[in-house]
Amino acid sequence: MERTWDGHLFLGSNASPILGKELVDYITQYLGSIRERRVIPDVKPGYMKELLPDTAPTEPEDWESIFKDIEKVIMPGASSPACTELEMNVMDWLCKALGLPSFFLHHHPDSIGGGILQSTVSESTLVALLAARKDKMLQLRVELNQDVDDSVLNSRLVAYTSDQAHSSVEKAGLISLVKIRYLSTDERLSLRGDTLKQAIQEDRRRGLVPFLLCATLGTTGVCAFDNLSELGSVCAEEGLWLHVDAAYAGSAYFCPELRWSLDGIEFAHSFVFNPSKWMMVHFDCTAFWVKDKYKLQQTFTVDPVYLRHENSQAATDFMNWQIPLSRRFRSLKLWFVMRSFGLKNLQAHIRHLAKLFESKIRSDPHFEVPAERHLGLVVFCLKGGNALTQELLRRLTRSGTMYLIPADIHTKRIIRFTVTSQFTTTEDILKDWGIISKMASALLAETQGR
Amino acid sequence: MERTWDGHLFLGSNASPILGKELVDYITQYLGSIRERRVIPDVKPGYMKELLPDTAPTEPEDWESIFKDIEKVIMPGASSPACTELEMNVMDWLCKALGLPSFFLHHHPDSIGGGILQSTVSESTLVALLAARKDKMLQLRVELNQDVDDSVLNSRLVAYTSDQAHSSVEKAGLISLVKIRYLSTDERLSLRGDTLKQAIQEDRRRGLVPFLLCATLGTTGVCAFDNLSELGSVCAEEGLWLHVDAAYAGSAYFCPELRWSLDGIEFAHSFVFNPSKWMMVHFDCTAFWVKDKYKLQQTFTVDPVYLRHENSQAATDFMNWQIPLSRRFRSLKLWFVMRSFGLKNLQAHIRHLAKLFESKIRSDPHFEVPAERHLGLVVFCLKGGNALTQELLRRLTRSGTMYLIPADIHTKRIIRFTVTSQFTTTEDILKDWGIISKMASALLAETQGR
Repeated sequence: MERTWDGHLFLGSNASPILGKELVDYITQYLGSIRERRVIPDVKPGYMKELLPDTAPTEPEDWESIFKDIEKVIMPGASSPACTELEMNVMDWLCKALGLPSFFLHHHPDSIGGGILQSTVSESTLVALLAARKDKMLQLRVELNQDVDDSVLNSRLVAYTSDQAHSSVEKAGLISLVKIRYLSTDERLSLRGDTLKQAIQEDRRRGLVPFLLCATLGTTGVCAFDNLSELGSVCAEEGLWLHVDAAYAGSAYFCPELRWSLDGIEFAHSFVFNPSKWMMVHFDCTAFWVKDKYKLQQTFTVDPVYLRHENSQAATDFMNWQIPLSRRFRSLKLWFVMRSFGLKNLQAHIRHLAKLFESKIRSDPHFEVPAERHLGLVVFCLKGGNALTQELLRRLTRSGTMYLIPADIHTKRIIRFTVTSQFTTTEDILKDWGIISKMASALLAETQGR
Repeated sequence: MERTWDGHLFLGSNASPILGKELVDYITQYLGSIRERRVIPDVKPGYMKELLPDTAPTEPEDWESIFKDIEKVIMPGASSPACTELEMNVMDWLCKALGLPSFFLHHHPDSIGGGILQSTVSESTLVALLAARKDKMLQLRVELNQDVDDSVLNSRLVAYTSDQAHSSVEKAGLISLVKIRYLSTDERLSLRGDTLKQAIQEDRRRGLVPFLLCATLGTTGVCAFDNLSELGSVCAEEGLWLHVDAAYAGSAYFCPELRWSLDGIEFAHSFVFNPSKWMMVHFDCTAFWVKDKYKLQQTFTVDPVYLRHENSQAATDFMNWQIPLSRRFRSLKLWFVMRSFGLKNLQAHIRHLAKLFESKIRSDPHFEVPAERHLGLVVFCLKGGNALTQELLRRLTRSGTMYLIPADIHTKRIIRFTVTSQFTTTEDILKDWGIISKMASALLAETQGR
């Protein structure tokens, strides 16, 4: 696979030591002239919106124009409010570029939602759970019309996810003390509406209060997709918060032809994905959107005098949208990447699929592809059983030549092979396949010799 | 205040664009040769300890020797396990440099504790609360000898902190649904042992289960210190987890003569401070130590197959010490800073006190210093009352020349002035005082004119 675009990277790609050095000079010059700059910016909340286009560029921009905007767009707002405002604008760009609903936009007349960059998907899942819990507790308090301890209410709550969901849902349960129920998936490892409906009815009969579904688009194991449109309408009928974890698959939605699994997204209360996985933005950078920002704020807001400022009322304070208080200026790298590549090249990158590797695996009779390939993830195993597959993985790891990780589909041990880097070439894929196939042959020969 | 050392900074100081550019070249060269490197490192858990000294250097090291160690110490361990191992070693350096107890060390024959870099102090406070809660719940479960829902146990728990504690304690309460009780401080704004003892007794009579004290060394408002030795022995008698929040003051403990407030630290179960505040390491970098790592791990461990690896048993997995799953390589900057400055110059930086500013404030009859100055924080107000102080702050903020924030001591509004940067000079302090004093005079003249 050739690189099909000429986008240059911000820092450290083969092509751009000069750009990295230009930035070092800028930082040096900035620190040297710091006493001449205003300490407190002279801008009003919302100042940045006027300075930026409403959407990300389709074509790549050159570094020179991006670099100029640092002084023009960012510096007048210093680190704050520029950090918040760039994040709001870039999250709106990203929301539009992925075809997500307009109720997730900061800047839209009918929206009370917005996006924020969190540290990780695992933290975002916890944030969604806490917001959904707070919302349900406030409802219960009105219904019960009496003073019940929050923890006692908590003991009645139950959240759902599929048996293929990421372990971060389990961790969110450990932290929140909320019961998590893992629901069975169908033969394509997808969670279906009827399964959810039945679980809700059972739990209500047991006196529990269902409040949240965490649906997955692109599971960790095999990149399976829960059926969002079925699940969404059940959530709407039953009053559940629908949180959508698209950690890996989210980047695919740059391509309209891959948006079929987003069907039902109009029911979502929150949505998360990781630009650091497949969108060439370095960790940490997790994009999280919420439909109703007030439901986040009522979960996390504390209001000491030393955190108040002149614009406390008018401005967005992301500290009330997250667990920690302080924040990094994460939107800069997202801004740089979206402009350097342009939407056109981000789409081209996503369309770099892992078909070649899949075709090689399928052509070898010792191997099996036990789940449909989606996007850039191919899963495979040896037909000889789990012990052989595990031993092959052990030897591949020992060789130091590639980093593959295991997963299980029900009782079957599988190996996951993913393609995400923009630097991956056809030669890389063929070389990896050569190593895997040679090691497998050697292993099978030894086993048959015994 | 002159800079009294010749330590050069890693990236971006006036003196070092060349070093920044050297690093850009290194990154470029690394990415260009990535196909020739091993994907999986060929090292055993603990490999790095042999390659590093047991303590941070006293004298500054030159950049050349630090830079060489990147290839020698870090690269053989790739990003993982090098990320974990450097963090363990550097956290041990920092623990020793601050005079903290040896039970916080990773590498010590009698220790089952260790340090980790978290994102923020607010997140660390939540982590400590969750670990203390889990520990108490397991105890309660044994005592009760019956199956009680975790949330029901949670409803009986109560944690303590002082009325001067940071708002992150309140936020940890919101998230965990644990009751937080704010205890009164003495005339020096310090929480005392008797106050805690009495609160515990009252709460036990009400059927509650006290489980945690969050003590503060260096409060946000005025840098007051809770009485750790009194509080520690009460916690030990009563079976409470003692968490110590030294967010700002922690850096002071590089200097032995400033360690008086650490008296009683031997009772602590966890300790946190922010190198990003006063130790010249950029955000995010929060140092958190725990006495018993198993109490963290039992709080956060989930164990899916795709997170298991060959060294899962032997190696430290920091993902089980924190809320998110993934982590940044934060220890690199801490390592660079400790070596670039050396302990000697870190101490010199801390001894750069804010005495000059305090003497100016005290020399002006319109001003008052309503709390003892500790470390680099001077608090002041106008004698004319809260409204005047608030108006002075508003005008200073509007001028854009300095960034000061308010706090309250009981009902008195104060302004906080801190000195933390290594670049601050005598001239900077005198210039700031000139602006404050001139604005105050103008404000007082207007008021008297009315």
